[in-house]
Amino acid sequence: MALSGFKNLYGVILAGGSGTRLWPISRELYPKQLLKLFGNKTLIQQTFSRLKKIIPPEKIYIVTNQSFEEDIYLQLKGLGMIRENILVEPAQRNTAPAIALASKKIFNKDKSAIILTCPADHLIKPDKEFIRAVKIAFPVAQNNFLVTFGITPTHPSSEYGYIKINSKNKVYKVEKFIEKPDKEEAEDLIKKGGLWNSGIFIWKAKIILQEIRKNIPEVYKAVKSQSYLSLQPISIDKGILEHSKKIRAIPANFQWQDIGSWKSLYQLLPKDSAQNVLNEKVLESGCQNCLIYGSQKRIVAAIGLEDLIVVDTEDAVLVSHKEKTHEIKALLEKMKKNNFPQYLQHPTTYRPWGSFTVIEERKNFKVKKVVVKPKEKLSLQFHKQRSEHWVVLKGLAKVELNDKIFYLKPHQSIDVPVEVKHRLINPGRENLEIIEIQSGDYLGEDDIIRIEDKYAR
Amino acid sequence: MALSGFKNLYGVILAGGSGTRLWPISRELYPKQLLKLFGNKTLIQQTFSRLKKIIPPEKIYIVTNQSFEEDIYLQLKGLGMIRENILVEPAQRNTAPAIALASKKIFNKDKSAIILTCPADHLIKPDKEFIRAVKIAFPVAQNNFLVTFGITPTHPSSEYGYIKINSKNKVYKVEKFIEKPDKEEAEDLIKKGGLWNSGIFIWKAKIILQEIRKNIPEVYKAVKSQSYLSLQPISIDKGILEHSKKIRAIPANFQWQDIGSWKSLYQLLPKDSAQNVLNEKVLESGCQNCLIYGSQKRIVAAIGLEDLIVVDTEDAVLVSHKEKTHEIKALLEKMKKNNFPQYLQHPTTYRPWGSFTVIEERKNFKVKKVVVKPKEKLSLQFHKQRSEHWVVLKGLAKVELNDKIFYLKPHQSIDVPVEVKHRLINPGRENLEIIEIQSGDYLGEDDIIRIEDKYAR
Repeated sequence: MALSGFKNLYGVILAGGSGTRLWPISRELYPKQLLKLFGNKTLIQQTFSRLKKIIPPEKIYIVTNQSFEEDIYLQLKGLGMIRENILVEPAQRNTAPAIALASKKIFNKDKSAIILTCPADHLIKPDKEFIRAVKIAFPVAQNNFLVTFGITPTHPSSEYGYIKINSKNKVYKVEKFIEKPDKEEAEDLIKKGGLWNSGIFIWKAKIILQEIRKNIPEVYKAVKSQSYLSLQPISIDKGILEHSKKIRAIPANFQWQDIGSWKSLYQLLPKDSAQNVLNEKVLESGCQNCLIYGSQKRIVAAIGLEDLIVVDTEDAVLVSHKEKTHEIKALLEKMKKNNFPQYLQHPTTYRPWGSFTVIEERKNFKVKKVVVKPKEKLSLQFHKQRSEHWVVLKGLAKVELNDKIFYLKPHQSIDVPVEVKHRLINPGRENLEIIEIQSGDYLGEDDIIRIEDKYAR
Repeated sequence: MALSGFKNLYGVILAGGSGTRLWPISRELYPKQLLKLFGNKTLIQQTFSRLKKIIPPEKIYIVTNQSFEEDIYLQLKGLGMIRENILVEPAQRNTAPAIALASKKIFNKDKSAIILTCPADHLIKPDKEFIRAVKIAFPVAQNNFLVTFGITPTHPSSEYGYIKINSKNKVYKVEKFIEKPDKEEAEDLIKKGGLWNSGIFIWKAKIILQEIRKNIPEVYKAVKSQSYLSLQPISIDKGILEHSKKIRAIPANFQWQDIGSWKSLYQLLPKDSAQNVLNEKVLESGCQNCLIYGSQKRIVAAIGLEDLIVVDTEDAVLVSHKEKTHEIKALLEKMKKNNFPQYLQHPTTYRPWGSFTVIEERKNFKVKKVVVKPKEKLSLQFHKQRSEHWVVLKGLAKVELNDKIFYLKPHQSIDVPVEVKHRLINPGRENLEIIEIQSGDYLGEDDIIRIEDKYAR
């Protein structure tokens, strides 16, 4: 699929952000890029597919952190993602160190590499216009410029960064970057032809590394010496773009959104005649200008609401005025302090082989529902501190216990004692669903000794 | 505890109302009178305890319908309720038939009976003032009057009925009953000394039955002939009070509330400095004049809300403007039409021996968590169409299977095949908790053949 003429073009997707601004559907351990907000692909799947139209999968890299690595690979392996191309940052230190890390890796492989860098969680359409912009930008990057894609503003937003330009050609010289101006300044910038900074860049690996070494040498050093952990977080905008003389901007004609809040998501979604965005789990009466999402097993009754965001999930519900959802940050801090698990993750966790949902959790036992996809299997493992008891609800289970094999149908059950090597396999053609009851004094997910793992964990 | 001098005084508690105005904490099958809204007693427990101060338990009757019978007995048996005194109406036909039914029952037993009739779900305090009012009313009832307790209005509410009086003694003659007047009429009634009709009455069984026979003979006949089902619903106010010449009103000095909406509940509860009513599952920022309740295993994040009611439960959440909660009625009709179980009952059902919660329900299986109280046991039973599988989570289980006895500790499990007689017993001193997995083509609660039941069901 990759276009010819771009043979030294590489892609870097920045996917380390633990966005919690869309809580409760995003969580610290399940950020925005992993969510299906539009259609049936997640934002990172959309981003990967877009890049694949001009860059072969083996040249697409992802920078993320350990928490998201497995989920990202799970979402992208079907699209051709190479596992080794997922680069795991030692710590989250904003975009400059992440870009330095990926650029160094690629430069070591290909000194002539030109890198298209983009965030994993932006909404862009149509892909055709995106590719057109890359085609225009590519030769500018070949001429040793750092190229950023500028978006024509639709309103004087205070959520984005602006690029002040000083020429009116197809390729603009950049006068200044202005991060999140107030409304008046934004209006003034727009009047003078200023653009939104999309956070999407194209440049030579060699040039961006030179600029990093010159402007933020501590970042350059950290990537070489692995002293990453001691870095202060710094964005590529603050670190490089605001200082470098080599910046050019390309006006982009694609639609672009960085969904930074529930309000901006509301604005993007199709609305009914009362300007509401609702799903099928909502029953409403007399609501206006609201986004109301119910979750699968529950319902939301909404009466006489205006300008509200109501988002219900399995374990938490957000009810917020539409203009105030940014205040969720402080509440998440409170949740963290009070050890509410809701700040961190969803009750359902996705794995390469299926998923599990914690139904009940207490000091000495945990009840989970486990779903194994057809023909998939979990790792061969044992636990030092817990025994398990499995009851089949649906499908067929093949169970290895030490060296014996058992087959279980719905309603049959089996005990897995402490320290016994075991593996759960779905040999059938439909999902296998079991209830797992864990019992023991310590039930942490880290009490798992893997002997053999299809997914090399 | 009963006061001397009241020896022919009986109590009738009307507990048949399936109030859904406090949905989602009340449900069609779990009405307001069964809820703990204030303190650690439910409204019906408070009502029963109040009557017990002047009437011995064996003289207190409850009229309800079959759906609530078990829950009511469960809540009151510890307070001395006599099971046989729970009268089950063949159908819900408003207050007049319910009062006729109970009055007839009591009259047949004691021709001189004087009956204190009151709804199960009113909030009244202090009990002392209530008893004082009954003492004043008792001799008036002995003089063959129908006595109603009138409440001094605190505001021109359109939710209540009014009594227009025409004298200014301790005992008022009643000129007229006015049901739910508009605000202006209510203001006018209050100016002229009108009172709220509390729905609490005292009268001779003989007299009220005479009045029923005279004014609504079809109701009198239905109670005698059991043609109850064909009755049109009719209230005692419309049927008797608006026509009878024998009415007197006693001004009551107790605080009285018929909690007919979330708004009136909000008004009654203690508020914080921002006029919010919150519980410990709520994290809020900048909310005002709101009632926000979170449920046990979930959390609610509330941001920038004003004048809202937010009530979260295990399977449903209500978000409503405070002035519009009455619109829930239409939404409940929709739920009913769409077979959402949330209109009908809670996922957790209480039984004499403990409780069960439906965790997951599908076509061919159901997963429940069952809690059995210490020393309690379920009925000896079998099922024609389902097998069951029990896994002990906590406590000790004694299981009868046909004629064998098994003891199970946490993490042990047992199969209960179709048609096998079984019984679950908690022989221990702590709660027994099990996971029950039901499997079969039909999983209705009515596939249960009870052979022996401690609770005589």
